[in-house]
Amino acid sequence: MSQINDINAYVLKLAQQARNAAAQLVAVSGERRNAALRQIASDIDAQADSLRRENGRDIEAAKAAGLSSAMIDRLTLTEKRVAGMAESLRQIAMQVDPVGEIVDGCVRPNGLQISRVRVPIGVVGFIYESRPNVTTDAAGLCIKSGNAILLRGGKEAIHSNTALATLIAAALEAAGLPKAAVQLIETTDRAAVSAMLKLDEYIDVVIPRGGKGLIRTVTDQARMPVLKHFEGVCHVYIDAAADLEMAHKIAMNAKCQRPGVCNAMEHLLVHEAITADFLPALCADLTAAGVELRGDEAVRRLIEGVKIADEEDWKTEYLDLILSIKQVASVREAIAHINRYGSRHTDAIVTRDIAAADQFVREVDSASVMVNASTRFSDGGEYGLGAEIGISTDKLHARGPMGAADLTTTKWVVRGDGHVRE
Amino acid sequence: MSQINDINAYVLKLAQQARNAAAQLVAVSGERRNAALRQIASDIDAQADSLRRENGRDIEAAKAAGLSSAMIDRLTLTEKRVAGMAESLRQIAMQVDPVGEIVDGCVRPNGLQISRVRVPIGVVGFIYESRPNVTTDAAGLCIKSGNAILLRGGKEAIHSNTALATLIAAALEAAGLPKAAVQLIETTDRAAVSAMLKLDEYIDVVIPRGGKGLIRTVTDQARMPVLKHFEGVCHVYIDAAADLEMAHKIAMNAKCQRPGVCNAMEHLLVHEAITADFLPALCADLTAAGVELRGDEAVRRLIEGVKIADEEDWKTEYLDLILSIKQVASVREAIAHINRYGSRHTDAIVTRDIAAADQFVREVDSASVMVNASTRFSDGGEYGLGAEIGISTDKLHARGPMGAADLTTTKWVVRGDGHVRE
Repeated sequence: MSQINDINAYVLKLAQQARNAAAQLVAVSGERRNAALRQIASDIDAQADSLRRENGRDIEAAKAAGLSSAMIDRLTLTEKRVAGMAESLRQIAMQVDPVGEIVDGCVRPNGLQISRVRVPIGVVGFIYESRPNVTTDAAGLCIKSGNAILLRGGKEAIHSNTALATLIAAALEAAGLPKAAVQLIETTDRAAVSAMLKLDEYIDVVIPRGGKGLIRTVTDQARMPVLKHFEGVCHVYIDAAADLEMAHKIAMNAKCQRPGVCNAMEHLLVHEAITADFLPALCADLTAAGVELRGDEAVRRLIEGVKIADEEDWKTEYLDLILSIKQVASVREAIAHINRYGSRHTDAIVTRDIAAADQFVREVDSASVMVNASTRFSDGGEYGLGAEIGISTDKLHARGPMGAADLTTTKWVVRGDGHVRE
Repeated sequence: MSQINDINAYVLKLAQQARNAAAQLVAVSGERRNAALRQIASDIDAQADSLRRENGRDIEAAKAAGLSSAMIDRLTLTEKRVAGMAESLRQIAMQVDPVGEIVDGCVRPNGLQISRVRVPIGVVGFIYESRPNVTTDAAGLCIKSGNAILLRGGKEAIHSNTALATLIAAALEAAGLPKAAVQLIETTDRAAVSAMLKLDEYIDVVIPRGGKGLIRTVTDQARMPVLKHFEGVCHVYIDAAADLEMAHKIAMNAKCQRPGVCNAMEHLLVHEAITADFLPALCADLTAAGVELRGDEAVRRLIEGVKIADEEDWKTEYLDLILSIKQVASVREAIAHINRYGSRHTDAIVTRDIAAADQFVREVDSASVMVNASTRFSDGGEYGLGAEIGISTDKLHARGPMGAADLTTTKWVVRGDGHVRE
C-alpha cells in the first residue's frame, strides 16, 4: 500500500467489499471452499521463498527497533513454519464442514417443519499482533466457515502479512471465490482500528487477540459484539488424593514448558495434607528451572527463599518464570480461590478421588477444566479443532478455543404448506 | 419495597446475592430444578386470587394514568392467564434438561478425553416491559437452565411482579433452591437500570425486551454482553410460482392476525408476473380489514387509493394496520431488498418452486426464514421451545426465539492420566 490518505474511507471500502463477499459466500459449496484452502496452501508452498524475503524485511525492522529476541523469533517465518502454515490450511480443508449442519429440528404437531441450521456469521473483523501464521489460520477458518474476514495485523508483521494477503486474494480468485473474502488493512495507522470498530453495519463481530491494552481499546470502542481472547490466570490444584509423582510432572510442565503463553500455570494451590511431602522436591526443581517462587505464609514456613505473595499476585498473569503457591484446606477452598482470582480460562486438578474431580469440574467456572492433565493442553489443535482463531474467555457464543464451527451462527428454517396462525 | 434510599447499594446487593445463588445452582440436579418449577406452578394456582388482587392495583393505576385499553389488556391477569402462567412452568419442567448435555467430544490420539458440556451462563439480567406473564416465563427458563435471574420489569406491572417475585422466592426456598435465584428489583426508579448495567462482575449477560428506546439505553450503557430483542421489520415475498390462494391466506394472516407484534408482516413483495392477478383481491380484503396500503409506483398504477411508500417506509416497523407493497422483478431482487431494509428477524417466501425456495432460504440473512408459512409462527412456543425469554435479533450466541438451551454456555472438560505437553 503506497499511500492511504483517508483512513476512514479506505476502511469503509474494505468493509463494504467484505459484506459483498460474505453475501456471495453463502452460495459457495463446501467443496469449493475446501478447494480454495488447498489452492492457498499450494501457493504458499510455491512462493515460500518470496514470503520469507518479505518476512526478512519485518525482521530487519524489528532488529533495528530493538525488539527482544523472543519477539523476533515469534515473527520469523522459517522454512518449517511456512510449510506448517500450508499444512494447517490443508488440515482445515479436511475437517467436517460446519455450514449447513442441522443443529436441531422437528416436525410440529401442525405439520410445520422446523430446523435450526448452521450458517456463516457474515463478516469477521480480526485484530491481532505479531505472528504471521495467525494470518493464515484466521483466514483459513473464516473461508472454511463461509465468512469474509477483515484482518488487522500488528505493525511488526506488516510486510509478511501484506505478502500473505496478496497471495490469498490471488488464490481465492483462482479458485472462483470472491477475493474480498480475505482482506488485510494495509496500513499500520492506529486510526484504522478505530475506523473499523465503528462499522457495525458491515462487520458482524470483532475478535481481538493480543495484549490487555488492545483488548480494552477494542471493547471500549467496538459498536459490534466482541469475542475477547483475554488473559489466562490459570491454576493447578494438587488435591490431598493426588498421585504426587504425576502432580510433580504436571506442575513442572504447566509452569515451565512455555511460560509466556496464556495457558501456562500462574498459580499453584496445594492441599495442606500433602504440602510437606510434595512441595520441597517440586520447589527445588522449579528453582533449578529458573522459576521465582512466591507463596503464602504456610508455604514460606515450609520452603526457604519463597517471597511473599500479596493480593495483587493472586490476580496476576505473569507470562514469565514466576509462580505463586498457596496452601488450601479443601477442594472447596481451592475452587473458591480460582473462581475469585482466576480469569475463567483454564484450571486443573490433580487427584485420584472421583468425588473431588467431579466437584472441581462442576464448580470451577472456567472455559476449560482439566483433570490430571497440564493446563498447556487448552488449545484448539490439542482439542481437535484443526486450528483456532483464539481462545475466548467470554461466556457467550464461544468459550475456550474457537474453531470453524464457532465462527457460525444458526438460522431457523421453517417449511409449511400454507400454514397460518389462528 | 417500602423505601430504597441508596439505589446503587440496593442493586449491588441483589446482584451479589444472584452471583452466590448461581454458584449454588451448579450443584442442583435437574430433578430438583424441575420440582421447584412445579412448586411455583402450584403456588400460583393456590394464590391466584391474591395475585389477581395485586394485579388489580396495577390496572387501577394504569387506568388513572390513562393507558390505552390495549395496554391495559396486556397488563391484565385474567383467571385464564394466571392458569396459563402455571401451565407454562409445568411445560418447562417437562422439557429435556439442557444442563450437562455433551455437545461434542472425542478421545484424542494421545488418550486425552475431551468433552464440551452445556453449563448455565451464571447470572442473567432481564429488563422488560408490561406483561406480568413474562416474569414467570423468564424466571422459569432461568431456573430450568440453572441460572440466577435479576428481573427488572416495567413500572406498570410493579405490584403484579412484586407479588410474583415474593411467591417465587418462597417456592424456591420450599423446594430447597436458593431463593436469590430469582429476584426482582423492587423499585421503578430508572437509576436502578443504570446501576444494574454497570455490574458486569456479577451479571454475565443482560437481555432487554421492549421498545427501541429501552434497547438503545441498554446497549449504550451495558458493560456486559447484551442479547437484543430488537424490532421485526418482517417481509413476505410472493414468488411468480406461488399458489395464489395460499399466498392470499398467508399475507392476510401475517398482516392482520395480530399486527402489533414483532413477527407480523410489515412489507409485502410481489413478483411482477403475478401482481395483476394477485394484488387486486388481496388489497380489497386488506382494505376491508382496515389496513392502510402504501406502495411503489407499479403497485399504485395497479391499485387505486394506495399511498406512496417512501424510503423511510421500507425501514419501518409499523406495528399497526399499515402495509407497504413493492413489485419486484425476481427472487434475487426480493432477497436484496430484504437484506437491505429488513431487521433480520423473520421473512417468508410463498412459492411452489423448489429452486426459488432454496435460494431464498440460503440467501436471506434473517433469524427465521419461512417457506409457505405465515411469519407469525416465529415464536418459541411454535418452535417447540416451551416458552421464550425473547426473540434475539443478534447473530452471536442466540438467534431467533430463545429457550432454556440458549441460556447456557459450554465448558470444555478435559480428562487425562498425567498428560503433559512435549
